[in-house]
Amino acid sequence: MGEYASGNNDSQMQSIRRDPVKTDFQIYPIGFIEKSNDITEIIISSTFTDALLGLDSFSHIHVIYWFHQNDTPEKRKILRVHPRKNKQNPLTGVFATHSPVRPNLLAMSICRILSIKSNRIRIHEIDAHHGSPVMDIKCYIPPQKPLQNIHLPDWV
Amino acid sequence: MGEYASGNNDSQMQSIRRDPVKTDFQIYPIGFIEKSNDITEIIISSTFTDALLGLDSFSHIHVIYWFHQNDTPEKRKILRVHPRKNKQNPLTGVFATHSPVRPNLLAMSICRILSIKSNRIRIHEIDAHHGSPVMDIKCYIPPQKPLQNIHLPDWV
Repeated sequence: MGEYASGNNDSQMQSIRRDPVKTDFQIYPIGFIEKSNDITEIIISSTFTDALLGLDSFSHIHVIYWFHQNDTPEKRKILRVHPRKNKQNPLTGVFATHSPVRPNLLAMSICRILSIKSNRIRIHEIDAHHGSPVMDIKCYIPPQKPLQNIHLPDWV
Repeated sequence: MGEYASGNNDSQMQSIRRDPVKTDFQIYPIGFIEKSNDITEIIISSTFTDALLGLDSFSHIHVIYWFHQNDTPEKRKILRVHPRKNKQNPLTGVFATHSPVRPNLLAMSICRILSIKSNRIRIHEIDAHHGSPVMDIKCYIPPQKPLQNIHLPDWV
């Protein structure tokens, strides 16, 4: 954890928690992205295949994966970027972007399921690299009511 | 990691990775949810406040937080549940649900920003508990084209 955990010692942080201070959160891949030719699949580890029951009733999934190519202490310290790597865009905090450089390397995509066979979920496409670790899959359920009054900055 | 990491030893997993095997992924809170009376805020650790620059140009954010109350080895082994804790709903793999019981305790919400002052993001509401660790924030950008042919099972 090193310096990243230092925020946990903020007095402000302490004051809002009722539980004993916990700083060690375990996360581990439940599968990996496999890309070959025109086929994109999520290969689920055999440990977790039971968690797929019923997923074939859905058309789409949220995929939470890891920007593993940026998993270095140096890159994880970068807090501001020019969005879309375009210097014309204003310097912006990474929480105000979807940049693949961020403190926790979490990525989110919504993907169409093409087929599920055993532990292999074939999907239409995903903006992830071959070998990206997948941390979670959730069924896609559309919002009950559309979001209102959406605002965006000019660079979007 | 323990038994959860055992999937990393699957021969199938090995075959699709080009990088040396990595099993230790570090994740740590960048802030916490604070709920008091009718006010819900995300308190960002001072370490990460610089990452908020420009977020006030957006109306909504994705919040990725941690179902910390289920963070026990036993609960993280549960792979099938009755959705919405309703036994009338069929036993379903957790990846086919948004259950707060899952191998990695990642939760996702889209929230309306009410105000941002220093390291405090006041939001309209979130289905998280007071004290929930927040792992990432991303600006909300609406999809460029709506999803087509969405299918859902009966229990949804």
